[in-house]
Amino acid sequence: MHVLITGAAGMIGQRLAARIAREGMCAGRPLSRLTLTDVVAPPRPAGFDGPIDIRTEDSSSAAIATELAALRPDIIFHLAAIISGEAERDFDKGYRINLDGMRNLLEAIRQESAKNGLYVPKLVFSSSSGIFGAPFPPAISDEFHVTPLTSYGAQKAIGELLLADYSRRGFVEGVGIRFPSIVIRPGKPNASAGGFFSGIIREPLQGQEALLPVGDDVLFTHASPRSAVGFLLHGASLTREQLGLRINLSMPGVCVTVGEQIEALRRIAGDRAVKLIRRAPDPAAADIVKGWPTRFDARRALSLGFRAEQDFDEIIRVHIEDDLGGRLPN
Amino acid sequence: MHVLITGAAGMIGQRLAARIAREGMCAGRPLSRLTLTDVVAPPRPAGFDGPIDIRTEDSSSAAIATELAALRPDIIFHLAAIISGEAERDFDKGYRINLDGMRNLLEAIRQESAKNGLYVPKLVFSSSSGIFGAPFPPAISDEFHVTPLTSYGAQKAIGELLLADYSRRGFVEGVGIRFPSIVIRPGKPNASAGGFFSGIIREPLQGQEALLPVGDDVLFTHASPRSAVGFLLHGASLTREQLGLRINLSMPGVCVTVGEQIEALRRIAGDRAVKLIRRAPDPAAADIVKGWPTRFDARRALSLGFRAEQDFDEIIRVHIEDDLGGRLPN
Repeated sequence: MHVLITGAAGMIGQRLAARIAREGMCAGRPLSRLTLTDVVAPPRPAGFDGPIDIRTEDSSSAAIATELAALRPDIIFHLAAIISGEAERDFDKGYRINLDGMRNLLEAIRQESAKNGLYVPKLVFSSSSGIFGAPFPPAISDEFHVTPLTSYGAQKAIGELLLADYSRRGFVEGVGIRFPSIVIRPGKPNASAGGFFSGIIREPLQGQEALLPVGDDVLFTHASPRSAVGFLLHGASLTREQLGLRINLSMPGVCVTVGEQIEALRRIAGDRAVKLIRRAPDPAAADIVKGWPTRFDARRALSLGFRAEQDFDEIIRVHIEDDLGGRLPN
Repeated sequence: MHVLITGAAGMIGQRLAARIAREGMCAGRPLSRLTLTDVVAPPRPAGFDGPIDIRTEDSSSAAIATELAALRPDIIFHLAAIISGEAERDFDKGYRINLDGMRNLLEAIRQESAKNGLYVPKLVFSSSSGIFGAPFPPAISDEFHVTPLTSYGAQKAIGELLLADYSRRGFVEGVGIRFPSIVIRPGKPNASAGGFFSGIIREPLQGQEALLPVGDDVLFTHASPRSAVGFLLHGASLTREQLGLRINLSMPGVCVTVGEQIEALRRIAGDRAVKLIRRAPDPAAADIVKGWPTRFDARRALSLGFRAEQDFDEIIRVHIEDDLGGRLPN
């Protein structure tokens, strides 16, 4: 089983590569080779004795996509993307990486098959709840309309449509994974509009102050980075028969208010941590977040066996285990 | 007011050009120039004294799109497309004409604006109910999911997403018109799976036999070619404020069973006409039609003033008026 990961230097990509290498398995079959590509060199994961190819390149170009398809990986995790804020600032770059990158990869696979003999890999595509756009019903069902309000969301929605059509035509075995908010992101605070969802937990756990720009009543659906990796791996294990023709799936998550996030932090790290959250209302940030989907009724994903955490306490505990060495900093 | 129509030699394109030329108006403003383009020469419409440019070319190429945008038409009706059956047979051609053609046009408009000064035309895009895919609810609401089951449907859905994003970013003023079944198509029977919806009316009105490959209980939503032209013109007249961000709209139509179509034919042309319909069940055709959307709850379009016929009798009468010179052949 040869596994290729694009965007392998990203937060999810690194964890996915690490888990596959550590387990030596993917989708129930032994790993024989791992190819990692990104615009910056992905770290070499530990625990796997077989060949690991580290590639530093822009995989969105048709030429690189052709090279990658010629390697004939059995499973491709296509995670390479420009994130939402950057796709909004740089229109051309967003379309080039997020749309052309996806289409070039699909086309390279189809051409590889036509030129060198049947080749139909499993293709796991990281999509996003950003394909949805307000106004929303109280819970977004699996049959809710697709009306993104960002270029990133439009590009991901187009990627889903391409993936579904190339799959229906038999060129790939696709599955699209619509991530909810993935928290708690490790590292430093960043400027993204939703950064506070991680920050109000991550910083206080480290004894540092965190700013909260929105009200306690803001509702949102989260899963941990560990769950995100689990979604991708579970997606890779599903058969065409299990998926049917609607291959793009909203993932489950923990739907909580910011206030409930804070109470989970209190249960795990005490009042001292909670006191480090400083309310700094920012109407602009509140406005952006208001346009985001809040709650999903992810029935299909649940029925197909996708699982997220049960509550926000568990998301915090996963962060402590996976990013803080298993214990609270004192 | 300079109006450009792509796909102007098609059934809808010809009628749209004829009506605009005849009325000398479009979207409430006087016509000053009309540009018609298609891969075969569109006929020159009568009744307009100003300049009419007839272009024979493949407008889906980036070079031609750039030429067209440089003409700076105020309103563009983008009707050029490969139809469903051909897009299914010829994967590359479908994506080239239906997806690249749309993207090249949008990009040409954006670049024209960037190079030569602000240019934000109204862009009316002919989409299709083919963006939806079975299984369906009893009526498809304005918020139903987008899961096309044909390459044509995928390409139109992608066109809608691009149009919405380019509109949201202020590069065009877009509106997407999702046509229901358009009947009664003039001309000879064709091999398209839904051709019988027209054929069982058109042929008997001419004293000729028509084959009916599906059962009388098949339900479908129709509007006349005259209504299709009306949808496009009404779309062109709507403002950005009226449309909001969800600019792609399912059109209203007459939802009837095949049996009800036949009874309408009986009321208008008598038993003699109905007797010319020969039932020739074709399970393959029935299977294809089963995957098509049946009924729309087109509330937004209705509230925005789009109107179709009231019943199928009216659709037949429109056919007699517009295609048979106003009276039944004897």
